[in-house]
Amino acid sequence: MPIRIAIVGYGKIAVDQHVPAIQGNSEYQLVAAVSPRPPQVPPPVPVYESVGAMLQAMPGGVDAIAVCTPPSARHPIVAEALAAGLHVLIEKPPAATLGEVEDMVRRAHAANRTLYAAWHAQHNDGVDDARDRLAGKTVTRFRIEWFEDVRKWHPGQDWIFAPGGFGVFDPGINALSISTSILPMPLFIRQAKLLVPANRQQPIAVSLDFGDNLSADFDFRERPDEHWVIEVDTADGEQLRLSEGGTRLAVNGAEVKVSGIGEYPSIYQHFAKLVAANQVEVDVDPLRIVADAFMAGSHQTTDAFDF
Amino acid sequence: MPIRIAIVGYGKIAVDQHVPAIQGNSEYQLVAAVSPRPPQVPPPVPVYESVGAMLQAMPGGVDAIAVCTPPSARHPIVAEALAAGLHVLIEKPPAATLGEVEDMVRRAHAANRTLYAAWHAQHNDGVDDARDRLAGKTVTRFRIEWFEDVRKWHPGQDWIFAPGGFGVFDPGINALSISTSILPMPLFIRQAKLLVPANRQQPIAVSLDFGDNLSADFDFRERPDEHWVIEVDTADGEQLRLSEGGTRLAVNGAEVKVSGIGEYPSIYQHFAKLVAANQVEVDVDPLRIVADAFMAGSHQTTDAFDF
Repeated sequence: MPIRIAIVGYGKIAVDQHVPAIQGNSEYQLVAAVSPRPPQVPPPVPVYESVGAMLQAMPGGVDAIAVCTPPSARHPIVAEALAAGLHVLIEKPPAATLGEVEDMVRRAHAANRTLYAAWHAQHNDGVDDARDRLAGKTVTRFRIEWFEDVRKWHPGQDWIFAPGGFGVFDPGINALSISTSILPMPLFIRQAKLLVPANRQQPIAVSLDFGDNLSADFDFRERPDEHWVIEVDTADGEQLRLSEGGTRLAVNGAEVKVSGIGEYPSIYQHFAKLVAANQVEVDVDPLRIVADAFMAGSHQTTDAFDF
Repeated sequence: MPIRIAIVGYGKIAVDQHVPAIQGNSEYQLVAAVSPRPPQVPPPVPVYESVGAMLQAMPGGVDAIAVCTPPSARHPIVAEALAAGLHVLIEKPPAATLGEVEDMVRRAHAANRTLYAAWHAQHNDGVDDARDRLAGKTVTRFRIEWFEDVRKWHPGQDWIFAPGGFGVFDPGINALSISTSILPMPLFIRQAKLLVPANRQQPIAVSLDFGDNLSADFDFRERPDEHWVIEVDTADGEQLRLSEGGTRLAVNGAEVKVSGIGEYPSIYQHFAKLVAANQVEVDVDPLRIVADAFMAGSHQTTDAFDF
């Protein structure tokens, strides 16, 4: 019996990634979509305005939902779905606050249902290999550079600079999710600098200092050299370089052949295993680092930004 | 055998509260103080410049430390003390970031030593009684008003408005620590507004919305009516009012006689029990709420502030 799954929040990420990953995995059957407004791309399944309307129309017909709404809308959706006995997969970042995430976890345990906070970047092909290579080693230098042009990747998406929108942490948290997953030691902020455009609420560029030669820079501003790179040097003289967001891995300058089934297929493969065991898997570390940066960091004003 | 304890960070709170609480409890012996600069009020025990210098001068002579430094200085001190086999009590808030707190907890478990994050406001005389009265009840309204004049209570303390200084969350987190301790349900932020003076980094006034008729206002600005009040209404028609920071409790308008030994004596009584069992007790909920407010809240600029 496949897992009958509905997608809640039928936007770009649902269409581009979730639908093909679900349709490409025989453990799932896509049965519905939930969207308060008619989706721009019509889904191949019935659309309901809310989770409640779907549950009423399809009693006993849905086993799980994948939540692809903006983070700040997720908590009530997840609470309702878990209370109705559904398993839940949530896109990254899991919610707008750590408190909401903790409450979701409590509810999942109380309902004895799966809650899986999927960090898609952790499922890139180079990540498992990097983690294996770093296990038990001493890191002597660690560096993230996550430079992407917000106009190119998020054209006109004003919400990303509104409260709860995360600003440049929206892509940056992907790098953090890889880092907390591969590093053999905990990662926590010592100092942070957040550059916030004069006309916005959320940072357009961030520098994070984790102490001990560990640092990260995220930048949303236009530049000639977009890149998404994580470098790790270890005490035994090895240098790992994850590039293109974690899809490529080089060791001491030489490309390593990595293989995998791709980010979203891997996410859904893992979710099926969790569902079979009613397991909860929620990694809050990346979101905790972001919250710490907001709390302890220095907030500086920079040039106004318009799309 | 009393617990031989040293105070690290010998400022106002150490002199006013920790020394008398330690000296008034026969389970403890105050044996040293640590201060990088000569303390303004000379302690009744030898002073060392660092924990390391103290450990070298008094090998095997110290069982525990009480850390009263500013939050951002604590992590390395706590790490060093735990590694040396000492038990650790830390003032509120436990650190500048959630990541540092988590790492301290890991280290305490690894060292099999007590780490106690003391929230002094939780030890006020009215708090236990309020918690007992609220157990198992449904809260229909919850309101914090924490209005104190920063010029009166923190004269000239510029650090409080610097990154990591917490601004009005410095007193406000005391209210949150009482709230998370007495409420029968979890508390997490839905919306937050942070007013930051144009010439400062940290908020001078904060509004927190926890949804469902639960809210808090913290204000550091001068006003005629300073007060520190928490009100809780329950579905059975009872209203609790904790006032004067939690020292007084009224139920349905009638003052309830509360008793206790006072904040800091109660903290040290509890710490002795934890030390006897090598237990770790770290409540991160108040700090998590503050981090969430910084991350998901709306940051607004208000009038410049000078002491």
